[in-house]
Amino acid sequence: MNSIIENKKGILHFDGCNTLELVEKYGTPLYVMSETEIVNRFNQLKECFINKYPNTRVAYASKAFCTLAIYQICKREGMCIDVVSGGELYTAIKAGYPPEKIEFNGNNKLRAEIELAVEYGIGRIIVDGLQELSIIEDVCKEKNKKVKILYRITPGVKSSSHDYIVTGKKDSKFGIPLDEDVIMKHIKDAIDSEWVEFLGFHYHVGSQLFDNESHLKATRIILELIKQVKGKFDYDIKEINLGGGFGVKYTDEVRKPYAYFIEPMMEMINDFYNELGVVPPSVVIEPGRSIVAEAGISLYTIGSIKEIRDVRKYVSVDGGMPDNIRPALYQAEYDGVVANKVDEEKNDKVTICGKCCESGDILITDIKITKTAKAGDIFAIFSTGAYGYSMASTYNGNPIPAVVLVKDGDSELIVKGQSYEDMIGNQLMAKKLI
Amino acid sequence: MNSIIENKKGILHFDGCNTLELVEKYGTPLYVMSETEIVNRFNQLKECFINKYPNTRVAYASKAFCTLAIYQICKREGMCIDVVSGGELYTAIKAGYPPEKIEFNGNNKLRAEIELAVEYGIGRIIVDGLQELSIIEDVCKEKNKKVKILYRITPGVKSSSHDYIVTGKKDSKFGIPLDEDVIMKHIKDAIDSEWVEFLGFHYHVGSQLFDNESHLKATRIILELIKQVKGKFDYDIKEINLGGGFGVKYTDEVRKPYAYFIEPMMEMINDFYNELGVVPPSVVIEPGRSIVAEAGISLYTIGSIKEIRDVRKYVSVDGGMPDNIRPALYQAEYDGVVANKVDEEKNDKVTICGKCCESGDILITDIKITKTAKAGDIFAIFSTGAYGYSMASTYNGNPIPAVVLVKDGDSELIVKGQSYEDMIGNQLMAKKLI
Repeated sequence: MNSIIENKKGILHFDGCNTLELVEKYGTPLYVMSETEIVNRFNQLKECFINKYPNTRVAYASKAFCTLAIYQICKREGMCIDVVSGGELYTAIKAGYPPEKIEFNGNNKLRAEIELAVEYGIGRIIVDGLQELSIIEDVCKEKNKKVKILYRITPGVKSSSHDYIVTGKKDSKFGIPLDEDVIMKHIKDAIDSEWVEFLGFHYHVGSQLFDNESHLKATRIILELIKQVKGKFDYDIKEINLGGGFGVKYTDEVRKPYAYFIEPMMEMINDFYNELGVVPPSVVIEPGRSIVAEAGISLYTIGSIKEIRDVRKYVSVDGGMPDNIRPALYQAEYDGVVANKVDEEKNDKVTICGKCCESGDILITDIKITKTAKAGDIFAIFSTGAYGYSMASTYNGNPIPAVVLVKDGDSELIVKGQSYEDMIGNQLMAKKLI
Repeated sequence: MNSIIENKKGILHFDGCNTLELVEKYGTPLYVMSETEIVNRFNQLKECFINKYPNTRVAYASKAFCTLAIYQICKREGMCIDVVSGGELYTAIKAGYPPEKIEFNGNNKLRAEIELAVEYGIGRIIVDGLQELSIIEDVCKEKNKKVKILYRITPGVKSSSHDYIVTGKKDSKFGIPLDEDVIMKHIKDAIDSEWVEFLGFHYHVGSQLFDNESHLKATRIILELIKQVKGKFDYDIKEINLGGGFGVKYTDEVRKPYAYFIEPMMEMINDFYNELGVVPPSVVIEPGRSIVAEAGISLYTIGSIKEIRDVRKYVSVDGGMPDNIRPALYQAEYDGVVANKVDEEKNDKVTICGKCCESGDILITDIKITKTAKAGDIFAIFSTGAYGYSMASTYNGNPIPAVVLVKDGDSELIVKGQSYEDMIGNQLMAKKLI
């Protein structure tokens, strides 16, 4: 248990809040996000990256957890953000987030999204190919604005992670392959364009990584590319974006400090530029999951318990795959505890399942919890801050739960729980069927 | 192509509607549902089941596609419905659907959901265990109402399907195991209860099945159980619910007619009761996917196209895993076509991917489409009517698309597409961060 997770008299506390009091106030299922943990992560990044090396920035990858409140935190903490759609961009702007600090990623940005980005005066667009470049040029011309861009490249590096979150390998929908005739044409077009300012390159090698090998390989590749660009076009790259992918602790993973990834990459970059006798360009990283995953827990009420003799004991909670699709989607594993019985010995192996009419609606397979767990107890699942709320659906007619932001014992609602009415708010009666 | 899918001058038509005109009117991504196909399926069930055998009913399993309009159709067609949550129940009642024709399934019904069901005067609750029975009794006592129940049993039958949708095997969160001391206690309690009327048994063996073997095995098991109940308690079972699970065509599956499943089950049931010289009980089935899957298509606009030499050609569309999670979640396969180029030869092997920042956001891997496909073309994916809209999320900040109901060339909006504003409608600014 890290410092924001505490056991006080057998009751789970999270960032100073008694989880049972949170449940009483806000109900279950409930997402709880710790501001302290989020800020701690940003502080770690300030220490080992932003304050340590000149001309560096952190862009929080919003898709992990996208709400008005997280953008407020990013703004206050001086962090940049990365958005991947018009919807995330809209949310950031609604939160009063400064557009010039926003970067826009995505393999298939829609024209309407690019228009929105250019109108708002977005900081950077991370471009995925020539088709996108020509849409951007078109939009910029129309609006008589210029936009800063980077190219996302595919370094051709395969990292060790779930296939769905390996993104740096060559067979990827993301980025521009490094075949010389392909990439050089892209670069020339960007340099020559009067509507974009070409800053440099972006890569993202994968997610939930505990080994810096693919980051280092990809950095080496990007530096090699920078050398080629200098040689071929006498063009100085002004910015490198090293992506994210820093692994977090869900169950028994041992989290690597940010420095483990950042230091050798920065050393490699600085050595490269020292050798050239040139000041290094801006360096940006894009952590998402590693900022918010461990900052979130999910609270559920235990309902039906079913013991199948010699087979398995199922403990049902009042949520499930609609509020956390990751176990079903990625075979993701989580840890959890009966929040009102933290002191009790964990000697009963059970499976925590959701309430959906679907066998795949299992949250944790084979976890040891107290034998006394019963209907009405509160079950907490840890490390659900990333890709929990952001992937939530109303599957099986289950409304999307509320999100509460907590800090030092205080709590505040940042997303209201859906009512049934909200849930079907966009549905219409078919007139011809009335 | 079945009859609702037509090629008219190279343009895909669906239930008489020109898909390009639908796109012009409603935009993309767009879910399109064919009323004709839905009604056809209900008619097939009337012919081979409801009208053929006395005392039989069909309960549409809403979770496949839950909207006001589908409940309107079910009502008009005289079909019962199956709901799995308070949210689905609420939606049905909002649509003016008669509560006495609703059945309520689920492994962990919440007390608030049971209260809602009893208040509305729901037709049946399919009970999953003793804990649920006692909540129901408690609620009924409080409201001085009696409710009809069936028990869901776990027949211990393993069917051939994706692990997530195999539900009849013994290691399941659903149903009551058949161990004699377990099941008989449940039955006795239900018979003795003054707050419930115990009607009989329910099973569900799995989903997307093309073999009737597990249905027949489970039916045999249920009949054996009925015999035991008669012997032990002299109690006559009044209703059997055989679940659903009838497979549909996504790509090259050959769909079995409903009669393939229903006839041998009904024969088995009738033989059993003939031998006893007794009139058979009511028989109910619960098809969901098989009613709506092929009644739906999804329409997308093609955006960026990325050809990685000697590797793969990615064709991006303006939707993806947020509007159809099934390929990523179940490795589900789909068929599709460029809707404005149906006539053209399909000689280019491509992968259809979505716009999410996630490598798993692939809709169709390796499909042959026309070589001329380009940005702005419309791509249609078939058989997305089940578990498309119902599992939709706003992942990556993508609003949930609109749903249009079509019939014989007419179209009507039944779910408005989310605006960005709708999408974050429940989000609040954190006051302490302003």
